[in-house]
Amino acid sequence: MTGGPLIDGLQYAKWSEKIFRQLREGGVDAVHVTITYHENFRETVHNIEQWNRWFETYPDLIFQGRTGSDVELARQTGRTAIFFGSQNPSCMEDDIGLVEILHTLGLRFMQLTYNNQSLLASGCYESEDTGITRMGREVIAEMNRVGLVVDMSHSGERSTLEAVEHSSRPIAITHANPASWHTALRNKSETVLRALSQSGGMLGFSVYPHHLKGGNACRLQDFCEMIARTADLMGVHQIGIGTDLCQDQPDSVVEWMRVGRWTKSIDYGEGSAAAPGFPDMPDWFSDNRHFNRISEGLKAVGMTSEEVNAVMGENWLRFFETSFGGSADQTRKVPRAAE
Amino acid sequence: MTGGPLIDGLQYAKWSEKIFRQLREGGVDAVHVTITYHENFRETVHNIEQWNRWFETYPDLIFQGRTGSDVELARQTGRTAIFFGSQNPSCMEDDIGLVEILHTLGLRFMQLTYNNQSLLASGCYESEDTGITRMGREVIAEMNRVGLVVDMSHSGERSTLEAVEHSSRPIAITHANPASWHTALRNKSETVLRALSQSGGMLGFSVYPHHLKGGNACRLQDFCEMIARTADLMGVHQIGIGTDLCQDQPDSVVEWMRVGRWTKSIDYGEGSAAAPGFPDMPDWFSDNRHFNRISEGLKAVGMTSEEVNAVMGENWLRFFETSFGGSADQTRKVPRAAE
Repeated sequence: MTGGPLIDGLQYAKWSEKIFRQLREGGVDAVHVTITYHENFRETVHNIEQWNRWFETYPDLIFQGRTGSDVELARQTGRTAIFFGSQNPSCMEDDIGLVEILHTLGLRFMQLTYNNQSLLASGCYESEDTGITRMGREVIAEMNRVGLVVDMSHSGERSTLEAVEHSSRPIAITHANPASWHTALRNKSETVLRALSQSGGMLGFSVYPHHLKGGNACRLQDFCEMIARTADLMGVHQIGIGTDLCQDQPDSVVEWMRVGRWTKSIDYGEGSAAAPGFPDMPDWFSDNRHFNRISEGLKAVGMTSEEVNAVMGENWLRFFETSFGGSADQTRKVPRAAE
Repeated sequence: MTGGPLIDGLQYAKWSEKIFRQLREGGVDAVHVTITYHENFRETVHNIEQWNRWFETYPDLIFQGRTGSDVELARQTGRTAIFFGSQNPSCMEDDIGLVEILHTLGLRFMQLTYNNQSLLASGCYESEDTGITRMGREVIAEMNRVGLVVDMSHSGERSTLEAVEHSSRPIAITHANPASWHTALRNKSETVLRALSQSGGMLGFSVYPHHLKGGNACRLQDFCEMIARTADLMGVHQIGIGTDLCQDQPDSVVEWMRVGRWTKSIDYGEGSAAAPGFPDMPDWFSDNRHFNRISEGLKAVGMTSEEVNAVMGENWLRFFETSFGGSADQTRKVPRAAE
């Protein structure tokens, strides 16, 4: 186990007491969880209601994280802080006023797109990436104001570079890997990774097999060497983990993630007709008890303990501490920062 | 001006920069504002979005109050803390999970009914008051848990007495007067007022003409004498002001308040075909600059400065401090109490 905080930059598990207990067994202090994809605002609120039930039912295991200081609270009380995020802007519908409402309800990350064109930007599966839209620029400014992190994990190259440029605060790519290591629409070019790091943004390394060189046959050493090489490119303080763990989800969920309500036919996304479901995870990471293997693997490829601590959580913690509060008019925002 | 905090227990003005400045001129430290009547959840959120725009536009005049300590923050920074409330449970639809969601968004008071039967209780205009419903008991427990105050201002006698009994925390009647002073469906019996005070609840005295003996011809002295007599009945620490000020509202709004969507015909509520609109206010109280007249009036009828301070704000402040935080599992709730 790392001596610093352990933070995962993205998971979308089929949550259960079993998984909450595995978070504790694995020593996970905080995790950014996807609570909504294509759900509209009211449906997203219903998902938050389900999380509130879990927080009420398992108060000794989890609680809702709202600020970076909640990571320290999690460590002090032996619980996992759960931070909400959306992988698509459907939750804000066409209403910029919902950005602050969702932030008040605890949303801390929002992808400007999933795989398709949204009202805000272009997804990485569109043939044409037209960049950030007129509304997209307004929404980025509002997200910057309230402290809702722009996440471009599923967005196109141009949209991502324009988001880095338009955002007055560092953005994140919570779950992806370098395309130079494994070519995939979802992995990112060195141009994007450089722009991200130079702007103070964060990359979370994904363990999702479609993002791995060799898929689930990828060896832990290969994964850790990729991280070390990316540290050379981006700096060791702009990177973290974002496993994209989808533990225990049925294949119907990956179909919902890909198809939502935008088509009446099937879209396989990163999968295929031959392999339409969730891929099996690599044997070295199948649930939250296995982060220590990544820590050990990073040491094994030559990273120092300080570098490992930075990658396994300290970098995300610093990013959380500076990203989740309001930006403008602190005199007004500070009293509400503890929200 | 009173030396203690000045808090109004209910207003539903047509808010504007003019009125926000009058709040400051009048030295109002905090006000419970009605943000929704018959609006469903999404419509209520839209009303909160409008309030967020006002908070962003007038940060030197107002901010959203969430805890009792925000009243002190208001006094320290020379602003007015705005606390949200609903005069009907339409905002929670038929979904108990929305109680916590609305509390997270800042709702601090919710009437179990307006004038009609709701899913939770009976309104004071129903011929039959069947008391708290099955769902009503569940919702009261949830409101107690999260720190959302039960307000029975518009409810029937039996429902109100049962709410006092079922609620594990003190409830409020934010805007009404004793029926023994002025008979009206909206004013409250001594039985209700005694049960309210014995349970630690609060009554806010209304300046709305339909609740006043003699209507808007009621003299300030009559109003203040009524308050002094009610202090003898309830104790001077269970009473405050709840003006029900509806400043600058067009008559179309009072029709919405009364008719909502429950009937296709007209309902005059406390008004009449001859006087369907908002009544004129008494000449001694027409806007937020006139609270000092009530303070002086209370002294003129023999109340001590300590008693006047209690009635003008200290009682509401104590009630705010003990009512807006979560009740159960403080270890989990405390980190979120500042919400």
